Amino acid sequence: MIYLDNAGTTRVYDEAIEAMKEVYSNTFFNPSSTYKDALAVKKLISESRAVIAQKLGCAPNEIYFTSCATESNNWALTSGFKNKRGNLVVSSGEHACVYECAKNLKNKGFDVRFAPLNSDGTVSLPALLSLVDENTCLVSVIHTSNETGVINDIESISRAVKAKNKNVIMHSDGVQAYLKTNCSVKKLGVDLYSISGHKIGAPKGIGALYVNSKIKLQPLLFGGGQESGMRSGTENVGGIVALAKATQIYAQSSSEEMLKRRDLLVNLLKEIDDVTILSESATRSHSIVTVVALNTKAEILQTMCADDGVIIGRGSACASHHSGNRVLSEMGLTQRQIDGAIRISLSPQTSDEDIRQAVRIIDKNITKLRGHNIG
Amino acid sequence: MIYLDNAGTTRVYDEAIEAMKEVYSNTFFNPSSTYKDALAVKKLISESRAVIAQKLGCAPNEIYFTSCATESNNWALTSGFKNKRGNLVVSSGEHACVYECAKNLKNKGFDVRFAPLNSDGTVSLPALLSLVDENTCLVSVIHTSNETGVINDIESISRAVKAKNKNVIMHSDGVQAYLKTNCSVKKLGVDLYSISGHKIGAPKGIGALYVNSKIKLQPLLFGGGQESGMRSGTENVGGIVALAKATQIYAQSSSEEMLKRRDLLVNLLKEIDDVTILSESATRSHSIVTVVALNTKAEILQTMCADDGVIIGRGSACASHHSGNRVLSEMGLTQRQIDGAIRISLSPQTSDEDIRQAVRIIDKNITKLRGHNIG
Repeated sequence: MIYLDNAGTTRVYDEAIEAMKEVYSNTFFNPSSTYKDALAVKKLISESRAVIAQKLGCAPNEIYFTSCATESNNWALTSGFKNKRGNLVVSSGEHACVYECAKNLKNKGFDVRFAPLNSDGTVSLPALLSLVDENTCLVSVIHTSNETGVINDIESISRAVKAKNKNVIMHSDGVQAYLKTNCSVKKLGVDLYSISGHKIGAPKGIGALYVNSKIKLQPLLFGGGQESGMRSGTENVGGIVALAKATQIYAQSSSEEMLKRRDLLVNLLKEIDDVTILSESATRSHSIVTVVALNTKAEILQTMCADDGVIIGRGSACASHHSGNRVLSEMGLTQRQIDGAIRISLSPQTSDEDIRQAVRIIDKNITKLRGHNIG
Repeated sequence: MIYLDNAGTTRVYDEAIEAMKEVYSNTFFNPSSTYKDALAVKKLISESRAVIAQKLGCAPNEIYFTSCATESNNWALTSGFKNKRGNLVVSSGEHACVYECAKNLKNKGFDVRFAPLNSDGTVSLPALLSLVDENTCLVSVIHTSNETGVINDIESISRAVKAKNKNVIMHSDGVQAYLKTNCSVKKLGVDLYSISGHKIGAPKGIGALYVNSKIKLQPLLFGGGQESGMRSGTENVGGIVALAKATQIYAQSSSEEMLKRRDLLVNLLKEIDDVTILSESATRSHSIVTVVALNTKAEILQTMCADDGVIIGRGSACASHHSGNRVLSEMGLTQRQIDGAIRISLSPQTSDEDIRQAVRIIDKNITKLRGHNIG
């Protein structure tokens, strides 16, 4: 099997599994207890926190572990939006866990504003800025799009937003960007930044939120006061340790090699008739390539390729519970284009040969599908 | 080492660790994806859900997986309390993750009412009922106290509350009760019931909320629409599978034998001078025994016992971030009594010999401590 669906097939590093297993076999104590063995667990957590903080270029006490990026993003939006008479500005290219959270706030009557996208999938900065005013509490723009791999220039966006209103809390969903592009939060100028474990080879069920120590964020979950009172609930020690381990391993992979491999993929895909690379003119991730194969049905294509041993994606797994493809539609794609949109994700484990083989199979199945006139 | 601190030393079953490892090694697909391998993961989740549902005596579609009981309890309270002009009634004996969540709602200006405790640690039913009126949205009473092991008669409480106002959503925190006492939600008459994995030998980071299919609860987390739209976020498949595995193993332990062992512990502890068993007159869990050893300091006693190879507790680990002991104080204990309160937890792995040995060491250290006149 060749796994090229970031949403669904990111493997967990064996070392991360082992680290988690070790925690639960031998270091099973509650870090909030006060005896010696529990202190060792506390130390494991703070060492893990330091690993993440170093990668995000912030202080360890600015990192709060959560159960997933959905929690991080919901926490950022609902707690960051503390002045209920203010407004919230969100890009239209957000992952469902920002978009649906914002939509829920809007449904409750709050002033939530959605900034439109450019045709390349980046958020339109002038349009975004026109929505920001003196009452804006929070702005949220995804760093790397999970749908297209396009990278928003968060640094410029943060600077422009804060120039217009210096009190705005700037949030970015960094799930697809963490370790895959420069994600130094200080450089990006963000106050809140969400990451997830299972996109970089850690197990599911662990995430984190960076919170700039200068801003005061209310917790989302109240209770035992873990995570300095910011995220109650017994710490998922195994997940935390595995997240740090996966971070260390993923960080060893070479961005340059991954970029080369992405370009190989793009060039091979372009040789197929009537296949368009999305967002090609924009800065894009080395991990996600989305293409439109006109006159095909991505759903059928995906199944055909899976039968041939190649797993590709077609939009976020998290969007599979919602109909259509909101982000591609916001980019101005027609329904016919969206029908033929497939997403191919690369990981540090993907080889050149995987890519050549995958494109051969994708090409074959596109031809087969078009021959059946299904498109 | 003899581990007698439920808060801090509940071991994870090897089989649960293996089940989790198996998921992350081989079944790492995203259950929301649509290809065949992902469907196998979906099946794992639904089989696990059925295991939990069977133990709680409800339908599988009434179980929603969460990251922990803190999330379950916060979700229950904040979403159950949907009519903001109504009121919320909570017992004073709740775990921090119910109590602090309720306190936060009260601080925000909502009508939150705390029902006092009887001296045995159970909630006072007449006092609770006097707080319930036609505007009450939700009542929350802990099933088994994490501080004293006392079991509230949730069945009678639910019946009385609903007789006074049939629209009340009845919630119970079942973390310490799950698999340890009768926790059939239909029999208990509750609409919401929270459970946690790491109290029964599953890893940390997994919990669940039972939601009666007749009530409509808003999600706490919005996004990809997982868990039938009720709890977004990629499912913690490893945690879910491990929770089901731990449930199956824990359920094999005999309540009768555990009760016998608790009584052995109680009888041996009573032989120590000036040691009082808390809540002895009430129905109590077979897993938690809290005693007051007058003229000692539990903190020092705990350290001395740990040095002798016996780990005992002194109140919830989740209370270690807060000062004092709210629940014991609500029961009317004096500060001097609270200072000497230790909590001893039994698990299915605890042997009679562990108990005899532990009591010998506790006895020895109490005598030593009193000799130093520290109390």
